[in-house]
Amino acid sequence: MAEAAARKRARGGGGAARRAERTAVSVETARHIERNIPNFEVLNEEALQIIEANAETVLEEIGVNFVNNPAALERWREAGADVQGERVRLPKGLAKSLIAHAPSKFTQHARNPERNVEIGGRNLVLAPVYGPPFVRDADGGRRYATIEDFRKFVKLGYMSKWLHHSGGTVCEPTDIPVNKRHLDMLLAHMTLSDKPFMGSVTEPSRAQDSVDMCKILFGEEFASNNACMTSLININSPLTFDDVMMGAMEVYAENMQASIISPFIVGGAMAPVSVAGTLTQVLAEVMAGIAYSQLVRKGAPVIFGAFVTSIDMNSGAPTFGTPEAAHITYGAGQLARRLGLPFRSAGSFNGSKLPDAQAGYETANTLNVGLLSGVNFMLHACGWLEGGLVSSFEKFVTDADQLGALHKLAAGVPMDVEAQAMEAIREVGPGGHYLGCAHTQKHFKSAFWRSEVLDYKPYEQWADEGGRDTATLAAARVETLLERYQQPAMDPGVAGALNEYVARKKASMPDAFS
Amino acid sequence: MAEAAARKRARGGGGAARRAERTAVSVETARHIERNIPNFEVLNEEALQIIEANAETVLEEIGVNFVNNPAALERWREAGADVQGERVRLPKGLAKSLIAHAPSKFTQHARNPERNVEIGGRNLVLAPVYGPPFVRDADGGRRYATIEDFRKFVKLGYMSKWLHHSGGTVCEPTDIPVNKRHLDMLLAHMTLSDKPFMGSVTEPSRAQDSVDMCKILFGEEFASNNACMTSLININSPLTFDDVMMGAMEVYAENMQASIISPFIVGGAMAPVSVAGTLTQVLAEVMAGIAYSQLVRKGAPVIFGAFVTSIDMNSGAPTFGTPEAAHITYGAGQLARRLGLPFRSAGSFNGSKLPDAQAGYETANTLNVGLLSGVNFMLHACGWLEGGLVSSFEKFVTDADQLGALHKLAAGVPMDVEAQAMEAIREVGPGGHYLGCAHTQKHFKSAFWRSEVLDYKPYEQWADEGGRDTATLAAARVETLLERYQQPAMDPGVAGALNEYVARKKASMPDAFS
Repeated sequence: MAEAAARKRARGGGGAARRAERTAVSVETARHIERNIPNFEVLNEEALQIIEANAETVLEEIGVNFVNNPAALERWREAGADVQGERVRLPKGLAKSLIAHAPSKFTQHARNPERNVEIGGRNLVLAPVYGPPFVRDADGGRRYATIEDFRKFVKLGYMSKWLHHSGGTVCEPTDIPVNKRHLDMLLAHMTLSDKPFMGSVTEPSRAQDSVDMCKILFGEEFASNNACMTSLININSPLTFDDVMMGAMEVYAENMQASIISPFIVGGAMAPVSVAGTLTQVLAEVMAGIAYSQLVRKGAPVIFGAFVTSIDMNSGAPTFGTPEAAHITYGAGQLARRLGLPFRSAGSFNGSKLPDAQAGYETANTLNVGLLSGVNFMLHACGWLEGGLVSSFEKFVTDADQLGALHKLAAGVPMDVEAQAMEAIREVGPGGHYLGCAHTQKHFKSAFWRSEVLDYKPYEQWADEGGRDTATLAAARVETLLERYQQPAMDPGVAGALNEYVARKKASMPDAFS
Repeated sequence: MAEAAARKRARGGGGAARRAERTAVSVETARHIERNIPNFEVLNEEALQIIEANAETVLEEIGVNFVNNPAALERWREAGADVQGERVRLPKGLAKSLIAHAPSKFTQHARNPERNVEIGGRNLVLAPVYGPPFVRDADGGRRYATIEDFRKFVKLGYMSKWLHHSGGTVCEPTDIPVNKRHLDMLLAHMTLSDKPFMGSVTEPSRAQDSVDMCKILFGEEFASNNACMTSLININSPLTFDDVMMGAMEVYAENMQASIISPFIVGGAMAPVSVAGTLTQVLAEVMAGIAYSQLVRKGAPVIFGAFVTSIDMNSGAPTFGTPEAAHITYGAGQLARRLGLPFRSAGSFNGSKLPDAQAGYETANTLNVGLLSGVNFMLHACGWLEGGLVSSFEKFVTDADQLGALHKLAAGVPMDVEAQAMEAIREVGPGGHYLGCAHTQKHFKSAFWRSEVLDYKPYEQWADEGGRDTATLAAARVETLLERYQQPAMDPGVAGALNEYVARKKASMPDAFS
């Protein structure tokens, strides 16, 4: 009872909260994208079967390493795997039978239940950029990220109509000690936004902090039985599971919190230089990782992740928005669906140093692939710049705006009698004009998606207003959004308890910067 | 015999020609894109049947206008249509039975037979921007286009590895009288490039000039029996066929030259504000237009065109790269395939004033839709800026570069044993690195598509080199390409005859500027 009341308070019950909700811009946030269009499938049945058979062969003959993790090796041994040193070889079918315990779809809860997201099925949940140590904005250029930058990104994410999720490390707050920054990041997500968020994965103890803070925010019983975080567990490709990431995953799975089990692959470096070879390795890695999550706790929610990109063989730099990355993403989506798992991939990927045309091309290439490949959870959906080294304020808002187009595209083509518009065609007739006809007047406000950042003005007006490029228009929007930001209401008791937890934890350990 | 010899000469036979060919950059030009991936289909069978039935109803009950064209009305009357004044109503099934005479696929010839393109089937032919009165470049900004600009764009098109077609009005040479500029444009395409090109449509007499010049270039007999031009015939939406465009089309059809029969639609203005309504009107218009082409000459090659975009209801400006345009393009592709016709749509569309991030997003959105919607002929594939008012030199080369990515994407995923890379996965094993392995060494040069314009350098190197954005990098590429340009060899007799034709025609009429 007390739990439920606390949870209601934390989620912003009460008159002040409701008033704040009504005035906050973010009230409009879409719940998630529900696809009413087909997925695009680049692999035929034969290709899929070859890759699946090869992945099973990789798991059985080559196997995977679980490093520094005797408990994992013991779990595998008990499950029937062949364990030699840290190498785990899985007999054919073992991974798949374990994966069958994972849910095909789950709800990630937000402190505001209107922001809960459904991950899996035909849905697409969009979350912002994750991980960059640098930020860039029009005024300050490129610099190390701070906690103040971090808070600004959380606010911008909260303000976005098209972003369903507050994300995790929207940038690395490098001004906070490494062993303490997860606390400030979680506090920012929990208090500055009411959208769902991600937990820390940089140490098992920090994953435990994330779980403990969720228990304060959601109430202990609720947080113990429901997914209140989705966290990013990277596989050390090729075929290696390190103790830090696995340790964090174990904490999350034990607490029924969701994990994205995701290879991080630059093709040609961490996987074969071919699409088919990369997909084989991705599948083997994800199968081993998700099978392991189910050894830790059957039914723990997980996502089939694939962060895969190509490499520029001249410079060794990862490249983004490329056709090979598209092939891999489409193919990985098919493989994930055949396993009945939610799928994570794609994002606002690009290798540009600036939010310029390169950033635009590469990002749009990847966002479109993400939608059509059937991605269920798209991390990095906005704000990514410079191969993931930089979180860009301007790109955050232009990307977030483009996500609106994905919503409309996913909705498919209405075919009701009104949409068929035969009366309008009759009314206007040959040589006429539709702007004034009744059908147009009735539907024009909702008929077409409209960017809130890009320029649609006539040339002369645009020139008179200074001839601003997209980056300049975006900088103005960043400023406006941050000015209009209003913190979502929260029970002061819960806020106090979270602050107290963070203060106590910080005081309990010396600063560490590496 | 003389014809064949002349044609061989025109196409650049002879030692000098062969030497020139060997050194010219454009020798590498891809023939066309052959899709080895599925099309994306946004409409289900029921939706397609509704739209097809509605289009037949539009043709039968509302009909189309053929303006100022008694001969067309007479042709329709003879074919069994109900003609009242300029209104032509087609009984159900009439259009479809006429369309059945049009080829589903045809070859457009180039003076260099290696540049012939196959239009239809699984192929995609890429042609540059068409029609802008302005040009923009980094140095000169935005200004009226001249014939010198025109020639530069033809050269850039010839130099592009990924552009299969030289196009038509790559910009409007506004410094040449309106009634003469088609001659200079054709001469530029015929002499500065050896790729296929488009004819004039601004007057039937100019279409006839185009045919006559083709007879000089290809030889009279060859040009009378083969498609040596593909020209753009716009429908005056809604449902109106004007005498100028139809007059040009009649000339082309009579001479077995190809026409794109294409509505030019800003949704909400020239067609209903809904996707289903717009597709209905597009289908009715194209069916009437193509049926008419087959009344002029059965078997004349034609393309189902759809230039359709959305409108910003705030400013009335057309908008590009939007989700509604994507829906319409995907749907129109399905409708074209069901009629067994080649399909034209998409391009480097955007509404931006500059080659900036907006231009990048919107263009990439549209290029990807173009590929996946099954487009067979993509006009405007590079260089389009500012809603089609401007041909941009910088955007021409960055777009043309992105077209390389479309080629790779369309090729699909190789699944042979070498591509499966199982030996590489075995060789590298858990925790290893693929850069040095035999499989990577063998394939790295061809494995990944690589941009020749975009920046892949490390941040520090990029900053040291001036921190250039995409537009700046593109400006340098424009300069390099124009410096490296070498005119493809041509028989001096043919060149002389073409020049003589143009001079004689120009001398035969006074200048007209409107």
